[in-house]
Amino acid sequence: MADAAASHGRHLLGLAGMTAAEITPFLDLAASYALLSRSRTAPRDALRGRTLINLFFEDSTRTRTSFELAGKRLGADVINMTVATSSVNKGETLLDTAATLNAMRCDLLVVRHAQSGAPALLSRKVEACVVNAGDGMHEHPTQALLDALTIRRHAGKLDGLTVAICGDVGHSRVARSNIHLLTAMGSKVRVIGPPTLVSGAIASLGNVEVFHSMEDGLRDVDVVMTLRLQRERMGAGLVPSAREFFRFYGLDRRRLALAKPDALVMHPGPMNRGVEIASDVADSVQSVIQEQVEMGVAVRMAVLDRLSRLRVPA
Amino acid sequence: MADAAASHGRHLLGLAGMTAAEITPFLDLAASYALLSRSRTAPRDALRGRTLINLFFEDSTRTRTSFELAGKRLGADVINMTVATSSVNKGETLLDTAATLNAMRCDLLVVRHAQSGAPALLSRKVEACVVNAGDGMHEHPTQALLDALTIRRHAGKLDGLTVAICGDVGHSRVARSNIHLLTAMGSKVRVIGPPTLVSGAIASLGNVEVFHSMEDGLRDVDVVMTLRLQRERMGAGLVPSAREFFRFYGLDRRRLALAKPDALVMHPGPMNRGVEIASDVADSVQSVIQEQVEMGVAVRMAVLDRLSRLRVPA
Amino acid sequence: MADAAASHGRHLLGLAGMTAAEITPFLDLAASYALLSRSRTAPRDALRGRTLINLFFEDSTRTRTSFELAGKRLGADVINMTVATSSVNKGETLLDTAATLNAMRCDLLVVRHAQSGAPALLSRKVEACVVNAGDGMHEHPTQALLDALTIRRHAGKLDGLTVAICGDVGHSRVARSNIHLLTAMGSKVRVIGPPTLVSGAIASLGNVEVFHSMEDGLRDVDVVMTLRLQRERMGAGLVPSAREFFRFYGLDRRRLALAKPDALVMHPGPMNRGVEIASDVADSVQSVIQEQVEMGVAVRMAVLDRLSRLRVPA
Repeated sequence: MADAAASHGRHLLGLAGMTAAEITPFLDLAASYALLSRSRTAPRDALRGRTLINLFFEDSTRTRTSFELAGKRLGADVINMTVATSSVNKGETLLDTAATLNAMRCDLLVVRHAQSGAPALLSRKVEACVVNAGDGMHEHPTQALLDALTIRRHAGKLDGLTVAICGDVGHSRVARSNIHLLTAMGSKVRVIGPPTLVSGAIASLGNVEVFHSMEDGLRDVDVVMTLRLQRERMGAGLVPSAREFFRFYGLDRRRLALAKPDALVMHPGPMNRGVEIASDVADSVQSVIQEQVEMGVAVRMAVLDRLSRLRVPA
Repeated sequence: MADAAASHGRHLLGLAGMTAAEITPFLDLAASYALLSRSRTAPRDALRGRTLINLFFEDSTRTRTSFELAGKRLGADVINMTVATSSVNKGETLLDTAATLNAMRCDLLVVRHAQSGAPALLSRKVEACVVNAGDGMHEHPTQALLDALTIRRHAGKLDGLTVAICGDVGHSRVARSNIHLLTAMGSKVRVIGPPTLVSGAIASLGNVEVFHSMEDGLRDVDVVMTLRLQRERMGAGLVPSAREFFRFYGLDRRRLALAKPDALVMHPGPMNRGVEIASDVADSVQSVIQEQVEMGVAVRMAVLDRLSRLRVPA
Repeated sequence: MADAAASHGRHLLGLAGMTAAEITPFLDLAASYALLSRSRTAPRDALRGRTLINLFFEDSTRTRTSFELAGKRLGADVINMTVATSSVNKGETLLDTAATLNAMRCDLLVVRHAQSGAPALLSRKVEACVVNAGDGMHEHPTQALLDALTIRRHAGKLDGLTVAICGDVGHSRVARSNIHLLTAMGSKVRVIGPPTLVSGAIASLGNVEVFHSMEDGLRDVDVVMTLRLQRERMGAGLVPSAREFFRFYGLDRRRLALAKPDALVMHPGPMNRGVEIASDVADSVQSVIQEQVEMGVAVRMAVLDRLSRLRVPA
């Protein structure tokens, strides 16, 4: 609820608690940025003179690059601060970091952190607008927004759909943010995965149907989202082998055929081909994986632009 | 003296030997940049078309970011070159690096290096203006300038004050630059620390009173500067424990009460709370630690701008 | 041949197969950028609104910086993506990376990779213009172009010269690109090195004379190019000691005297002084090593500008 409240203001910390009416303006603005980007006519002065800091406590070349591009294309001064968590422990608390960012007159702060709640903690101390770029196993709201925009471009709507999220759901902040967004927009979400990877916590989010078999869960869905198997987040002994995982939960042609004929295939990237998704499915006409990346830049432009306009001038 | 001479020209290598008349213009320009930054109206073309290279042989996210922001806010093209010293040893001498920077038409060169004198060495070979961003145990002139600007904003002057610099003084280039600046401006400096950390070299800088007890040294001072305990620069066997250090040399409420009632509390960051400074002192109304960071960007804008105008066109 | 064909279009993957008529326009444009850079009047809008991504799978501060400067001086948005090969293996195939870059609307892609052919592979999948910034032991075309521009500025021509390339030729993509370019322009190339380092593959490039003695190979040449001894690319047991290498293949005054009196001395940097080149030779009036770096930025500006204009709009 604290997150939700914060989301309505000048930060984007998570999608939990946001309504369709609050989510849609982000998608609409992103849709227009997607068009402008293709024609390379995005206005380069929306963030002119503003400072965007990419504060990454976990490295992520892909997400960091997407935000960096979004900021630069809107004319912001973009600064990358990749911080090894170890050196943070050595030197400075998160709250001292917040004070430093304020003193440097940071306007927009994009945060990725291994601990759930770190962006929310920062948001209570910084004058900047905070965008959560992924925190622990909590949320990754811009990923869910770009997924939603991609779906909306193909399905024409975000309500009345059935979306299956498959695989390593338990460790996935992407899954969590998507569940919040899709249910808020009026769609149904199924999660499919082995009992060890689909935690009770996910089921308790509500409005989610849990399946342990791809064959059962994929039937007649409109969208199949596969997730990256995140071995690095699993305890030893629980890690399935790639072959074993693919055998039971990999998305192949045969399983995809159980979904609706024009079901969309999605993946947040980077993909482990042959682990969570078969190569031919990733490259099929039903796949919109590359479009997700493109919408990622547009969504981040929209989020940065919109939050910066919601912000009370210092 | 060589440093001093160089400082008067197009480089800022150290503050040793600089007079009040030479230091003050940097502070005045920085003060105006501090105002402009708040209103976000800094002129973005002072360094348009100029190339600023941040050449960091030691990593320092905070100082590098401060210079990067200063350069970008003045419109420079900013390039970060973080060089592991090991690879330098492997490949290229410092003088070959200088030749490379000249060939790349670097206009402003910000250098941090573990060896004292490295920026001075580079300054004799490069066409760029060189700013020392910290070299070994020698100097860190922009830190002393930002400390001075912060003090001046509160005390209204830089002469006739008594400033105590506490803790790990012997390893501190920050202490050295502050001693040079504050004595040049007409203030008195006391250094306080254990005999193992307050070297004879500091005492021999002249115009410095040495104390080994916080209780003695803090009495009636106008400013208390605490320094980060730099364990990484200490020989094995000499490293005090955090608890032991705090017990004897940590700045807590009780000790701060010995200083003047409105004495300023300063720290160059990043802080080790509970080691060199108590948390409640760091966050007290007397603390200007966050303002130091803000003045840091303004001082670096002023230094880059002013040196670039002093430079003889190539 | 595939490379050659690609080079004629919107990519620069290698110089093999390119004719003098195809190479010269790059050199002419670079020559004009070299003049503009000195006067700091390069047009800052040639790449305004374009996205340049430096995708480095091998780190190279010097080459990355040169491309970053070139892009920024032409007004591009420049993004650095330094990718440890290990993490690539973990996550994503090169072709998935290509799809991601397309989706991010990358216009110009500069690629360095430890595997020969990686830039060519990417060029078949990305919409961006691809510039090979060094791939395995294959090619490094912008290095050869900057070497050629440097020679042309001094010799006034690129035909009818004799150029000796000395040392670790077998591991050198620089040597390979230079051999292609110089022979295409009508000059003769000699390679000089120990049998272990001058592979049959080099000799089979054609139009190359192989020498195993500096004394024989340097006689009456117009240009002496020394190469960095790349111990990291050698198998154990084959690595010569620095002293041994210098004794037999180091360029010293005595050996340089065998070349023409005004022969140019070149090195692609970073130099190992006292290994492949004597310090006094590196700093002599015949050395144009610093000028090579300067021409490097100009050549990269020319390549980025020219390829971007050759590109079919998306």
